[in-house]
Amino acid sequence: MIPRYSRPEMTSIWDAENRYRIWFEIEALACEAMSNYGYIPADSAKKIRQNGDHAMATFNKEDVQAIDAIEVKVRHDVIAFLTWLAGKIGEDSRFVHLGMTSSDVLDTCLSVQLTQAADLLIKDLDRVLEALKKQAYDHKYTMTIGRSHGIHAEPLTFGLKLAGYYAEFKRNKERLTVARKEIAICAISGAVGTYAHIDPRIEAYVAEHLGLQKELVSTQVIPRDRHAAFFSTLAIIASSIERLAIEIRHLQRSEVREAEEYFHPDQKGSSAMPHKRNPVLSENLTGLARIVRSHVIPALENVALWHERDISHSSVERMICPDGTVTLDFALNRLAGVMEKLVVYPDQMKANLESLGGVVHSGEVLLVLAKAGLSREAAYRIVQRCAMATWTKLNTADGKTFRENLENDPEIMGKISPEVLDKAMDGSMHTKNLDYIYANVFGETGPVPE
Amino acid sequence: MIPRYSRPEMTSIWDAENRYRIWFEIEALACEAMSNYGYIPADSAKKIRQNGDHAMATFNKEDVQAIDAIEVKVRHDVIAFLTWLAGKIGEDSRFVHLGMTSSDVLDTCLSVQLTQAADLLIKDLDRVLEALKKQAYDHKYTMTIGRSHGIHAEPLTFGLKLAGYYAEFKRNKERLTVARKEIAICAISGAVGTYAHIDPRIEAYVAEHLGLQKELVSTQVIPRDRHAAFFSTLAIIASSIERLAIEIRHLQRSEVREAEEYFHPDQKGSSAMPHKRNPVLSENLTGLARIVRSHVIPALENVALWHERDISHSSVERMICPDGTVTLDFALNRLAGVMEKLVVYPDQMKANLESLGGVVHSGEVLLVLAKAGLSREAAYRIVQRCAMATWTKLNTADGKTFRENLENDPEIMGKISPEVLDKAMDGSMHTKNLDYIYANVFGETGPVPE
Amino acid sequence: MIPRYSRPEMTSIWDAENRYRIWFEIEALACEAMSNYGYIPADSAKKIRQNGDHAMATFNKEDVQAIDAIEVKVRHDVIAFLTWLAGKIGEDSRFVHLGMTSSDVLDTCLSVQLTQAADLLIKDLDRVLEALKKQAYDHKYTMTIGRSHGIHAEPLTFGLKLAGYYAEFKRNKERLTVARKEIAICAISGAVGTYAHIDPRIEAYVAEHLGLQKELVSTQVIPRDRHAAFFSTLAIIASSIERLAIEIRHLQRSEVREAEEYFHPDQKGSSAMPHKRNPVLSENLTGLARIVRSHVIPALENVALWHERDISHSSVERMICPDGTVTLDFALNRLAGVMEKLVVYPDQMKANLESLGGVVHSGEVLLVLAKAGLSREAAYRIVQRCAMATWTKLNTADGKTFRENLENDPEIMGKISPEVLDKAMDGSMHTKNLDYIYANVFGETGPVPE
Amino acid sequence: MIPRYSRPEMTSIWDAENRYRIWFEIEALACEAMSNYGYIPADSAKKIRQNGDHAMATFNKEDVQAIDAIEVKVRHDVIAFLTWLAGKIGEDSRFVHLGMTSSDVLDTCLSVQLTQAADLLIKDLDRVLEALKKQAYDHKYTMTIGRSHGIHAEPLTFGLKLAGYYAEFKRNKERLTVARKEIAICAISGAVGTYAHIDPRIEAYVAEHLGLQKELVSTQVIPRDRHAAFFSTLAIIASSIERLAIEIRHLQRSEVREAEEYFHPDQKGSSAMPHKRNPVLSENLTGLARIVRSHVIPALENVALWHERDISHSSVERMICPDGTVTLDFALNRLAGVMEKLVVYPDQMKANLESLGGVVHSGEVLLVLAKAGLSREAAYRIVQRCAMATWTKLNTADGKTFRENLENDPEIMGKISPEVLDKAMDGSMHTKNLDYIYANVFGETGPVPE
Repeated sequence: MIPRYSRPEMTSIWDAENRYRIWFEIEALACEAMSNYGYIPADSAKKIRQNGDHAMATFNKEDVQAIDAIEVKVRHDVIAFLTWLAGKIGEDSRFVHLGMTSSDVLDTCLSVQLTQAADLLIKDLDRVLEALKKQAYDHKYTMTIGRSHGIHAEPLTFGLKLAGYYAEFKRNKERLTVARKEIAICAISGAVGTYAHIDPRIEAYVAEHLGLQKELVSTQVIPRDRHAAFFSTLAIIASSIERLAIEIRHLQRSEVREAEEYFHPDQKGSSAMPHKRNPVLSENLTGLARIVRSHVIPALENVALWHERDISHSSVERMICPDGTVTLDFALNRLAGVMEKLVVYPDQMKANLESLGGVVHSGEVLLVLAKAGLSREAAYRIVQRCAMATWTKLNTADGKTFRENLENDPEIMGKISPEVLDKAMDGSMHTKNLDYIYANVFGETGPVPE
Repeated sequence: MIPRYSRPEMTSIWDAENRYRIWFEIEALACEAMSNYGYIPADSAKKIRQNGDHAMATFNKEDVQAIDAIEVKVRHDVIAFLTWLAGKIGEDSRFVHLGMTSSDVLDTCLSVQLTQAADLLIKDLDRVLEALKKQAYDHKYTMTIGRSHGIHAEPLTFGLKLAGYYAEFKRNKERLTVARKEIAICAISGAVGTYAHIDPRIEAYVAEHLGLQKELVSTQVIPRDRHAAFFSTLAIIASSIERLAIEIRHLQRSEVREAEEYFHPDQKGSSAMPHKRNPVLSENLTGLARIVRSHVIPALENVALWHERDISHSSVERMICPDGTVTLDFALNRLAGVMEKLVVYPDQMKANLESLGGVVHSGEVLLVLAKAGLSREAAYRIVQRCAMATWTKLNTADGKTFRENLENDPEIMGKISPEVLDKAMDGSMHTKNLDYIYANVFGETGPVPE
Repeated sequence: MIPRYSRPEMTSIWDAENRYRIWFEIEALACEAMSNYGYIPADSAKKIRQNGDHAMATFNKEDVQAIDAIEVKVRHDVIAFLTWLAGKIGEDSRFVHLGMTSSDVLDTCLSVQLTQAADLLIKDLDRVLEALKKQAYDHKYTMTIGRSHGIHAEPLTFGLKLAGYYAEFKRNKERLTVARKEIAICAISGAVGTYAHIDPRIEAYVAEHLGLQKELVSTQVIPRDRHAAFFSTLAIIASSIERLAIEIRHLQRSEVREAEEYFHPDQKGSSAMPHKRNPVLSENLTGLARIVRSHVIPALENVALWHERDISHSSVERMICPDGTVTLDFALNRLAGVMEKLVVYPDQMKANLESLGGVVHSGEVLLVLAKAGLSREAAYRIVQRCAMATWTKLNTADGKTFRENLENDPEIMGKISPEVLDKAMDGSMHTKNLDYIYANVFGETGPVPE
Repeated sequence: MIPRYSRPEMTSIWDAENRYRIWFEIEALACEAMSNYGYIPADSAKKIRQNGDHAMATFNKEDVQAIDAIEVKVRHDVIAFLTWLAGKIGEDSRFVHLGMTSSDVLDTCLSVQLTQAADLLIKDLDRVLEALKKQAYDHKYTMTIGRSHGIHAEPLTFGLKLAGYYAEFKRNKERLTVARKEIAICAISGAVGTYAHIDPRIEAYVAEHLGLQKELVSTQVIPRDRHAAFFSTLAIIASSIERLAIEIRHLQRSEVREAEEYFHPDQKGSSAMPHKRNPVLSENLTGLARIVRSHVIPALENVALWHERDISHSSVERMICPDGTVTLDFALNRLAGVMEKLVVYPDQMKANLESLGGVVHSGEVLLVLAKAGLSREAAYRIVQRCAMATWTKLNTADGKTFRENLENDPEIMGKISPEVLDKAMDGSMHTKNLDYIYANVFGETGPVPE
């Protein structure tokens, strides 16, 4: 997480201010519950809430520094905060944190922060989805060549290509929704999860008011398989970003030029080569994806804490929680921007599609020959022969189109009519099922209203 | 995947025989559907099914070799199989694979294999869950010391510890159920996913009969974010295995000796040191977890295929699909065996629990002092002083128990009665919520019937 | 490691036969040393060597099975082997393995296997280097366009491109040579590395005769940072393979077509699209690189064994040692084959180079304008303007070449002569330093003799 | 990289100030060289140096902001800097960066930063080595139990244990020295590495004056296999840190208590459990190791840039270069601190060593029995029997020591004398080779002078 690749919406979740606000909220809710169940005086709970709310309402950097100063002395972050809070609350502060352990606060707070982050990431995914849907409908019938192995295969429309990415990012949204649920967990169960010094109803109360579920069994901490699942999901989303970024990079290649990132008039492409417009945003996204993906291994290594917990996960999470969510948030917004402003060149798509002399229609021709009674082997042999003849003499003086080579092939002549050949090469079969697919992908929602 | 860490139940899923059976099933179902929708003669579909079923019923290693021999010549695995199949089916074979592309067969087959593997892994998880539940109930009231940072913290019961692992493996079962759904996908949509040469209803028919969902948008292949999600889930499960394995390894340490892997009378622990009984199964599980976890990165790297697909994912999947599922299946069964036969030493647990002179009760004493009116800071200072006095003179001539030190502390004397102190150190608070937790974790099912 | 991606030269290193031969050699050498230093009778050492050599000379699968059968009973691989060996050697066998521990044999054996593997991999790298050098000299003056960000930048020669890969693989060879040294280590120091029951001179003797260095301090095992360094090196080599494979894949793209993998006449590219020739070998290499790279994490996780060792590394190494070396060996040979037979299309390179109307010469024009007295900013502005005008109207009716746009630019006219412009765009500056670079890279060796 | 885990010595290397200083140095050196070889006026080079040196001498945060402001407009970091620099230098600035490309500056600067970081890390390693050596000599004869599989194996001294870590960190220092050399590279070769617009002698001059080697063949950038090798080395060092951290954590376990991290009197161990002193530094190091290790995958993924470069590596490096070096620098210093102040409990080591009734001497007894004429199998059976009898009744009323059980064993009685048994169990064999090992590890240097 570095400023260059950060948005304040996400970084603020990881600010000290937000963290301390959540800590107070957990402590205050716990006090309310303890008061409800008769463990502490109702008046004290009320004062804790009132004085605390007042302190947090004006909470600022100086408060953070004050807490930091205490921490230097006591070398314990939660004790430092509670000491500071006691100064704000007064005598009733002795009921704060009663029977609780630091991890109750720390881990529940982390859950709140991760769900806040997840909510923002879900919004980001919605922006990406919207951009993809808009382009998918705009280019529903923009013909382009499909490529497998980087080699021209068969035509599809550019809209269908994007519909595929839409479907993938929709899956990612569902995964993130599940992952959010995985870490929307509250644990207030004491030093080793026995509720030895605290009534389980406190946990239930706090959980409900924070919009979390309570943990079934905690150790001292919320088990880290939950967090590993969360970071795995971020890594999958990052890999999908990488796939789309690489698609754009390919399309913008000088030899392909079918689409381009929007290029700001003031932008300089290269200090030495003024002619260049580079897909730098997509390349950047490729790199950011590597970063987010790399977090999955330490997150998985964090699972196997010793016994009822060791604290090795903590330093890892202090880094990957902000780094992972901030970087992914930035990347999703950058991606959405790229897709919203993507410059598409339908003419160039058409030119590329036709550049191989029509061999991209070989699949349908194969079927037509088979229907005309040739064996699969014979049909394949003939079609490959004509395709290779076209391909190898492409752009040469004696080059012939695939269609011409087929017409002149002695084994084909007489088997199929020119009309049948025309039909096999008119490309209509590549769009006839678009409505079916779009209905599957976009459902009832239909195109984005202008 | 090596024989040493493999079970035939899982390796057979990845056998050539199983693969070819599934290939045939896909082709035969597609023919049935094509016949239903009038694309090929009903008689041909019937003969393909009959002759093919007959061929597959007697399918054996010689058939595999025959197909391999063809592949050497044509350098294409699906074409090799279809050529072999044509020999078994006769003339009607020309209707087989009509309008389909290799990936339709390969990817749908992989989905079937991965769901078969997932089903077996879910069964494995059930065995682990059963073993954990049995031990959790057997040791519901077996007191042991909880440890954070490897340092004695507060008591809990060994059953509760295992209930936590049960809850974690139950989450893993849910994750795997979701991951299974992610890859239970059929795609029969042609070279670039347009259904150009095949009716989408064929895909729907085959999907339904194979118990799969159809892909919303394929490229040439089923998008690899699905497979990445599957392998991420295997990696999380592996990390949970590691956590439990490391727990056992700790408990079996010479200085702890609270539990041991079952040691077969014929087993030799060390060629040089005959006295040793090592937790080799748990250590082995730790290593196997590393292997399964390592697959998540290449699985994620597989997502960003170029355009409508490149084939870089294929070599990766040829290795990690069998390796990952076979190794995890083996590991889960080994883990279940370890937990089923685990030798537990309640007396040693009790001895360890008491070995620190009672300082493990410091948390409750702290609360009791607070209730008696001391400030948190004062209480903490006193309790830490008494605990340290106990700890540092442990097992020395002038060592005193924590209780003795508390009784002699000038700041405590008079504040609380010996009865209150007794109560604070009797450990009852650590078991009083067990029924609540067990009900949450194990629900209505209750203990395993003997 | 699967047969499809394996070569017998490497798999045989990991065969049971090779392992047992090495085990015997270690034991026999240790006996010789013990005899030299008076620990066991010279006659016994001689008989152990003779009888053992005889047994190993005829060692075959049945012997392996016999040892396996013993292992099932004693559950310890080294004890099983020693038991079998005792049967071959007779009474003197009681001097075998005296004062040694299993790891002395196992770890030293692994070192021998890894050095054998490294030697083979170095040979593989030599084959890759040779192929690269040959092509680098063949295409020393074959002009092609250099691309940054996938966008045409400035020309270079195809030979220079390959010279860069040559330099990278030469670095890899040096790294592997270092890594080989890292694991060419012998440890015979007993249960916890104290030489308590064995004279250190035994270790020194065995090390020398096996061509290994002795470990400075062992635990029970050779420390795993050495193996981590080895697998890191394999991962770097794999990443270099990936870079070259991706280069080839780009060059073979339908829109680029500057080079192609050799395509066997019998090969079928696609079951549905007969026209296709796909860079499947390079794509395969991309996938294999992911696999080898993924081993680096478990190898690093293996370092932190507990105390004087736990056995968690063992299952990892049983898989990644053969998998990593076999897969990399296969990949390097496949890569060498691709590069040896690579089909290069210089005409297409030239066509692509010229396809952007000459804007690829913008860098030199910029310099020429600067020399003519324009400020950097002015020169940049002008050149970008002319380049963009060329680029955006490329292949349109009113499109002009970069040269034409420059000549017509009011701010340029009069500043530089047509001759200067010609010179700036003749491309000669891109080849003038080739001899310098080639001398640096290939040194005195010069081109490969035909 | 977060402040909590950062030292200013390392973070300052990655400051904007340091970066710009290096950029200027590269540009100024290049101008000197260009002047030397007659490309630009000597006077201009001198003024560039003088004015630039003056500007950099007072360089501060406001300058950074000024450059940032320009970058917002031109969207290119090097151009922004050059624009700012031009303002400081005046008219002669037009000779700055002549014929160079941004990457020449950026990549050479990164090399300088990474070598600066490497130098600091090497110093850190020296501090760790010194601490280890000191403790290794202090505890050369402090007996402790060696453990394999966490189970007591045979005794060794605590000093020898540390000598092993010393040897490992010495290997790490050598690796880092090699890795430093790998990235101490200068490249000034233009847009695609052809030196088209710049004399190769410029590169040679700058390289020499910066203490770098020149790259043999660049693309637009220095090939990323070099950086991958660097980060692999950091990952190996991190894994060694993890191994030592886990050792300390084990030794500090409540049941082991053989050593402890120094615990500051003001420190609070737990908010709820005042008795606790936790190995939080070592646990923290375990987590930091995971972070540094995780960088190796993105660093490896950075190798395969497209053609002559894409910029995907850049965002990765902007994060992992500071994160990796800062975190490792912090971790090494924290580790050195832990080892310098480590509190060692030799009495507890002795107590643990003897806690298993002497079975830890079984290895030598085995040898003694073998020497007395028993077969290996018989000796093993007897010794295992006596060891198990000891082990299973440990701390029970009818428990006997290993020695007692041996003496009472009918198969042993008469075979060996009490004196021989005494000798076998006196532990002297575990220290007799210490001088040999220490000489190997520490060489001539001997112990640290007090």
